[in-house]
Amino acid sequence: MEKIGTFNFVTESYLLDFRGRLPLPMIGNYLLHCAGEHARQKGFGFSDMSQRSCAWVLSRIAIEMSRYPAMSEPITIQTWVEDVGRWFTNRCFSIAGKDGSNIGYARSIWAAIDLETRKPSDLTELGNLKEHITEAPCPIDKPGKTPPAETDTQGELYQVRYSDLDVNGHFNSIKYIEHLLNLFDIEMFREKEIRRIDISYVAEGRYGMQLSLHKKETAPGRYATSICDADGKALCRAAIVWKEQD
Amino acid sequence: MEKIGTFNFVTESYLLDFRGRLPLPMIGNYLLHCAGEHARQKGFGFSDMSQRSCAWVLSRIAIEMSRYPAMSEPITIQTWVEDVGRWFTNRCFSIAGKDGSNIGYARSIWAAIDLETRKPSDLTELGNLKEHITEAPCPIDKPGKTPPAETDTQGELYQVRYSDLDVNGHFNSIKYIEHLLNLFDIEMFREKEIRRIDISYVAEGRYGMQLSLHKKETAPGRYATSICDADGKALCRAAIVWKEQD
Repeated sequence: MEKIGTFNFVTESYLLDFRGRLPLPMIGNYLLHCAGEHARQKGFGFSDMSQRSCAWVLSRIAIEMSRYPAMSEPITIQTWVEDVGRWFTNRCFSIAGKDGSNIGYARSIWAAIDLETRKPSDLTELGNLKEHITEAPCPIDKPGKTPPAETDTQGELYQVRYSDLDVNGHFNSIKYIEHLLNLFDIEMFREKEIRRIDISYVAEGRYGMQLSLHKKETAPGRYATSICDADGKALCRAAIVWKEQD
Repeated sequence: MEKIGTFNFVTESYLLDFRGRLPLPMIGNYLLHCAGEHARQKGFGFSDMSQRSCAWVLSRIAIEMSRYPAMSEPITIQTWVEDVGRWFTNRCFSIAGKDGSNIGYARSIWAAIDLETRKPSDLTELGNLKEHITEAPCPIDKPGKTPPAETDTQGELYQVRYSDLDVNGHFNSIKYIEHLLNLFDIEMFREKEIRRIDISYVAEGRYGMQLSLHKKETAPGRYATSICDADGKALCRAAIVWKEQD
């Protein structure tokens, strides 16, 4: 059985941003969809895990794009398990555009939690996860440091709403990206593109929580961003690198 | 050539709300996608209209749902042109769920604007639009009144962000719905469902605009909502009817 999962999408106009490009959060949605489907095919999907009283939790993800898909562009995403440790497993992605040439890669790190205790599950006890490991090129750095943006910034207040919640009733991990990108002025999106984002998920956001959104430039074109709860504790941090547009 | 367009979708987990249901804004996205594709097939799509220096503008839409699609549910949307007048054309939709039985209907009213003058285009001069008219059952009321919610409510401030913009750089017509639904407490979504929404699009929203979001109960389970600009002028109004959940 093929160890690499292959999934096809076609961008649709209502998903595009004002530049006529598929925005980064939607790429994130596609990646998580592929991860879920691939896991399901291998017997480790949402339902399989639920039966073991477990759930996958996304811990970190890094996405690096050389180009963003355009209107009605066919996209092919491949995903595979690179490694399985005791507490974490690494999943890679490659993203190809309309001519089949690569336009991006992503690397993600997942833990499983026990739904009763909310503690990490030992992945080596979950069955033969390791037999799905394979190698394929994913020439980008592993998810890297996400320095705090909240330490000396004011932050913008935001209260978690209905549309922020995922099917588990938690703050949707992709909606975090949407809110963080909204901290940037539209001129940034006109003039530049996001080359890479590294995201760390630290704690769960819930309905009604009063959050603060922070952004800080750490070097030219490099930003630390974070989403904190009312006590100032980070739920999520992201390091964002912009490149000049071609 | 078949006058009724038929389009198939399958709901995906990342599109679902905390109830595990496809939310109303996503149904709106599907409907607009079908409208665009059907128009394109008939020679009146986005590109065809651009060549005539015109663009379709959604003026009103009413969506009535008896049930919301669940996880991985196949959905079939049919759409057709019901009528073409001089300034407006009516497009209907029916929505079927996994067993092929109907779960909702929608009616929409569109104008075309001249991209130079921003004035309405005479639809009778746009070619043979009328030849696409057909009849099919759409047993719901036409888009109805959307009373003002802004007259005696405080309103919640909101500034238009990157993620709100559509491919034309305007406030995405579906994002209006998302913001209006976010005015309701999560308990409403837990206990009830939206049976019907009537939306009137009055003026375009743009990046950076400071908006106010208003909500007012007009009768038990019935709400007037609106999105206004900094001068208090409505950009969009919606009448929302909740039903008790089955």
